[in-house]
Amino acid sequence: MLSFENDYSEGAHPRILQALMDTNLVQQVGYGEDEYSQRAKEKIRAACQCPDADIFFIVGGTQTNQVVLDALLSGTEGVVSAVTGHVNCHEAGAIEYTGHKVLTVPGYEGKMHADDLKALLETFYADPSHAHMVYPGAVYVSHPTEYGTLYTQAELTALKNVCREYEIPLFLDGARLGYGLMSPGADVTLPFLAEICDAFYIGGTKVGALCGEAVVFPRHGAPKRFITHIKQHGAMVAKGRLLGVQFDTLFTDDLYCAISRHAIEMAEKLKAGFAQRGVRFFLNSPTNQQFVILPNDVLKRLEPQVRFSFWEKYDDAHSVVRFATSWATPPENIDKLMKLMDET
Amino acid sequence: MLSFENDYSEGAHPRILQALMDTNLVQQVGYGEDEYSQRAKEKIRAACQCPDADIFFIVGGTQTNQVVLDALLSGTEGVVSAVTGHVNCHEAGAIEYTGHKVLTVPGYEGKMHADDLKALLETFYADPSHAHMVYPGAVYVSHPTEYGTLYTQAELTALKNVCREYEIPLFLDGARLGYGLMSPGADVTLPFLAEICDAFYIGGTKVGALCGEAVVFPRHGAPKRFITHIKQHGAMVAKGRLLGVQFDTLFTDDLYCAISRHAIEMAEKLKAGFAQRGVRFFLNSPTNQQFVILPNDVLKRLEPQVRFSFWEKYDDAHSVVRFATSWATPPENIDKLMKLMDET
Amino acid sequence: MLSFENDYSEGAHPRILQALMDTNLVQQVGYGEDEYSQRAKEKIRAACQCPDADIFFIVGGTQTNQVVLDALLSGTEGVVSAVTGHVNCHEAGAIEYTGHKVLTVPGYEGKMHADDLKALLETFYADPSHAHMVYPGAVYVSHPTEYGTLYTQAELTALKNVCREYEIPLFLDGARLGYGLMSPGADVTLPFLAEICDAFYIGGTKVGALCGEAVVFPRHGAPKRFITHIKQHGAMVAKGRLLGVQFDTLFTDDLYCAISRHAIEMAEKLKAGFAQRGVRFFLNSPTNQQFVILPNDVLKRLEPQVRFSFWEKYDDAHSVVRFATSWATPPENIDKLMKLMDET
Amino acid sequence: MLSFENDYSEGAHPRILQALMDTNLVQQVGYGEDEYSQRAKEKIRAACQCPDADIFFIVGGTQTNQVVLDALLSGTEGVVSAVTGHVNCHEAGAIEYTGHKVLTVPGYEGKMHADDLKALLETFYADPSHAHMVYPGAVYVSHPTEYGTLYTQAELTALKNVCREYEIPLFLDGARLGYGLMSPGADVTLPFLAEICDAFYIGGTKVGALCGEAVVFPRHGAPKRFITHIKQHGAMVAKGRLLGVQFDTLFTDDLYCAISRHAIEMAEKLKAGFAQRGVRFFLNSPTNQQFVILPNDVLKRLEPQVRFSFWEKYDDAHSVVRFATSWATPPENIDKLMKLMDET
Repeated sequence: MLSFENDYSEGAHPRILQALMDTNLVQQVGYGEDEYSQRAKEKIRAACQCPDADIFFIVGGTQTNQVVLDALLSGTEGVVSAVTGHVNCHEAGAIEYTGHKVLTVPGYEGKMHADDLKALLETFYADPSHAHMVYPGAVYVSHPTEYGTLYTQAELTALKNVCREYEIPLFLDGARLGYGLMSPGADVTLPFLAEICDAFYIGGTKVGALCGEAVVFPRHGAPKRFITHIKQHGAMVAKGRLLGVQFDTLFTDDLYCAISRHAIEMAEKLKAGFAQRGVRFFLNSPTNQQFVILPNDVLKRLEPQVRFSFWEKYDDAHSVVRFATSWATPPENIDKLMKLMDET
Repeated sequence: MLSFENDYSEGAHPRILQALMDTNLVQQVGYGEDEYSQRAKEKIRAACQCPDADIFFIVGGTQTNQVVLDALLSGTEGVVSAVTGHVNCHEAGAIEYTGHKVLTVPGYEGKMHADDLKALLETFYADPSHAHMVYPGAVYVSHPTEYGTLYTQAELTALKNVCREYEIPLFLDGARLGYGLMSPGADVTLPFLAEICDAFYIGGTKVGALCGEAVVFPRHGAPKRFITHIKQHGAMVAKGRLLGVQFDTLFTDDLYCAISRHAIEMAEKLKAGFAQRGVRFFLNSPTNQQFVILPNDVLKRLEPQVRFSFWEKYDDAHSVVRFATSWATPPENIDKLMKLMDET
Repeated sequence: MLSFENDYSEGAHPRILQALMDTNLVQQVGYGEDEYSQRAKEKIRAACQCPDADIFFIVGGTQTNQVVLDALLSGTEGVVSAVTGHVNCHEAGAIEYTGHKVLTVPGYEGKMHADDLKALLETFYADPSHAHMVYPGAVYVSHPTEYGTLYTQAELTALKNVCREYEIPLFLDGARLGYGLMSPGADVTLPFLAEICDAFYIGGTKVGALCGEAVVFPRHGAPKRFITHIKQHGAMVAKGRLLGVQFDTLFTDDLYCAISRHAIEMAEKLKAGFAQRGVRFFLNSPTNQQFVILPNDVLKRLEPQVRFSFWEKYDDAHSVVRFATSWATPPENIDKLMKLMDET
Repeated sequence: MLSFENDYSEGAHPRILQALMDTNLVQQVGYGEDEYSQRAKEKIRAACQCPDADIFFIVGGTQTNQVVLDALLSGTEGVVSAVTGHVNCHEAGAIEYTGHKVLTVPGYEGKMHADDLKALLETFYADPSHAHMVYPGAVYVSHPTEYGTLYTQAELTALKNVCREYEIPLFLDGARLGYGLMSPGADVTLPFLAEICDAFYIGGTKVGALCGEAVVFPRHGAPKRFITHIKQHGAMVAKGRLLGVQFDTLFTDDLYCAISRHAIEMAEKLKAGFAQRGVRFFLNSPTNQQFVILPNDVLKRLEPQVRFSFWEKYDDAHSVVRFATSWATPPENIDKLMKLMDET
């Protein structure tokens, strides 16, 4: 069975497993105070050109969104997200579970527009009864978005300017950040994110790690007692080394970028294959998630041999489906997929 | 630096790392639906002699306590725990964070007495205004306890009988369960737990895994939509295989028991060493956590060369400290510690 | 200063104050167990032709929505509301505070369409990853809506049929229910609501009481331990008689209907006055809230002499504003308003 | 039926009802912005000699404790209370519902000792793993306590000194404050409380109002956006005038003190009556709640004719019961009770 279902179908990059083996019996203190975690943090600070960043490792993406937003928001505040944002759709209400509303603005292929954000904030503060409403207390964007699209520096700067005007933090969900950084033509870099975000995370789970996300709070910006917030949410791992070793490896010899670049190359190959076969694209994604419109009978014939994600109904005869590449996708798999396409 | 600080100072048992390597590039579906997780669940069901158990893997202990109890308790209910229970002390309020009170009864070297539990329940229901109070909705015990002590079958049966009378579930925190199962003279077994508990977990993090706890709900007893509860708490891992492979390994060829037995043997060796040197024990622990009373100046001299956990002040000149062995403790380390004791 | 700002600008109907005086020194037990509350419940059951209804009195509307929905919803569930629903907009996130997401469907002049509800539910259950999303667990409608509009029996029946199909409760917010019941041409009655709703409340605060809402759970349908839910939310009043006496009075000699009818007559007079003066209506409201489009300069001139509610910007020169009548509005006030309109 | 069950068995002081009548049809803005609330606040500020106090009116006591503490505490914090504190026992977990743990210290006839508070804080900060525990973030005391006892100025000052040292706020629950202020020999005054507390409330419900508590935050100390916190908890009343008129009346011509003094005089008369009859007191209460030890058969004979509160079992033949006087207790009722005592 061939799988393009997502970017977490395999284990970890082999160098990560090797590093886990190499360090396995060295005794370390727990809860992220181990030396591998410290080393990983230093390397991430360097990659972000941000020596004063507070960095924490958390196991998964929903958890990271939940813990970070709950710590950033005060009791009367909610988070602004595009209506398609992961926090608004696919986290089983993890944000609301912590007592905070997700306030939505339109999404444009997954992206939030600064104008819409500004309009929401202006309307809120113009409303004489806004003390009876949820205060917008942070902004959530994902990059790449849930649709594989990317913000430009200009777009994020525009969002940040609105945030600055209203003094609310900008939080960027980088579950697939590597794929965004390595997309050809992308101008958003780690140092740029460190400059513009109040918090963001560098995704590991979907970019070659077994698990783990690295949360970065530039300018010593970690919320007070963030460790306790992590613990309270059940998000503290005893063997913090598991996350430390992985990020230490990912940020050694540029591995994070190298494996992300590979996924992008595989996505380009996939796109080219689809395009040659006249397949329509649902939108133009520059990253590792590709959304195509395929006839339902084609999908039916593919299903026994290849896994992909159903996204949404397109019309009565067609569906939008997602094919994802990753750090682990061998070029042969794409050839096999194209062969299957030709046969069906 | 020698460490007896805890039982999570090393990585994972080498067979676990090997299994992660062996399966690394096999594509699997996410979120615990992978074949390794399925296999691990079957093996655990067999070990528990409980073919109808619902089983879930969760990354850590606090998280497991939080997710399970939040799913077991209804909105008006709290959980009864010994005052020394982990959920009452060392989880940064993770239970209260989910809206549930921890109702306490006395702890006797970490253990709850059925009489105290019964008294709490009787007093509660005898109070004519109990509708204005928190309903006791579940019972939490840890085995081994936070003090390394163990329940007998008779003691757990007595607790269960009270639970049955009041129709509330019994939940057992087995973060260190292996060490309890392998303690000489212990009569509590996995099949016994599956018979008596409404939910319990088999700890992995502290018993040889990188991370992971296996929650067992005997008799198809998983709370409704437990998967969604896990997701909502941010406790769902995308690469569920990470947990599946580990428990599959731990429950192959009796590895879980074998490595737990080793830790107990090392604890016995440690106890013998202390006893020979006239060290007083704070209590008699039959498992891998040993609590001893040492003069503060001895501790001071040991500190630069060995890590242990400060537990509490004993008197002005003495402290209670904990030394923990684990699956990974080499006998030489205990010899070294004893040598250090003799030298200081 | 003349006020049409809302329907809670005055105190209580004089008969209510008289009843509070008459009963003042009679000793009663607390927490709603007093005889006035019992009597009021009997009268409400009779008015609803629903002898098996569970009835509770709660101080205010937001509180009622919060307590009832939190008790109806299980942990993994959210409530479906029109995007304009009070619970989604003007309750400072009271629902999310309790951990539940508000899932939105479009609002049509404040009303939810059964088709949209059905589409949301179908889409949810058709999504293969819906276990990672918030389950729709109840439906919230307001009647009259936030725009003064009313459902017909047919429309509510259509919503109920969808609820029945998916086995989720229908909850109706009747903060201004009296005004809906007395609107000419309205076919929704208390017995109909008791038949069709799983829970609804009869608003007191906005219909002549000092405070208080009567929650009705037909068919002994109160959530388990609802008293404890009320207490836990801080919503229990010690002197339950305050609410009991008020509802006892409102449901004696048809007072609730009589004073509601008066408000409707005043609204009709207000509409006629506006219509004669060529004022445009934002929408056609058959109840006591009237939304009109007025030039900003007219509003500016009115403001020093009359209070009304700004609703939203219509265009650069016009605003939508709300004028509300109530049980307390004297006809002269409308004449005065019209005189002011003519002068400005 | 004679009732000494509690201090909320009657309605309101007649002057309060008269004031509600007198102001009934004057149109006012809602949500506490009415002129009566403003006037009441000014009078309370004067009574507290605290012109810079932020004041809010909330309907009930549990609600006030919940809203105030939730606003004072940050996410990682819990509140310290005597084990007998109302927030720890009789509020159905209202504090935990908001995500905060109640951390307990011993209670001495309901009172917290500064030494115990200091010990809890010292132990907490001395624990090297305290970041994994709930931070003590506020201190809750009740005055009078749940046992009718009173703090002295010296005792509260000692508690405040500990709070100051650890920079945590002191919150005083004054549900029955009037009875504490008027107790003979009591040295705690409103100005003293305004000086020493970060927040306290002046109880109305149990001291002559239909409902309502006045929360005082001296030195402009209201938590940020406290109005929104109130709304979010469902604790905002539309007709804020209901609370404003009541407190305006209570703080006119010293009514609050006058009616409290009456309750104390009635309690003294009650005590004298019991003492003459050789009844044992469970503790020496200087306020309106009296706890006596009576034989169960005496209680049985009294029950058909007089209401009182069962407190706890004393021994097999005796119970501790509470008799409460209030602003409304006529002296004749005490005579009647004593006559009943003599007859039984």
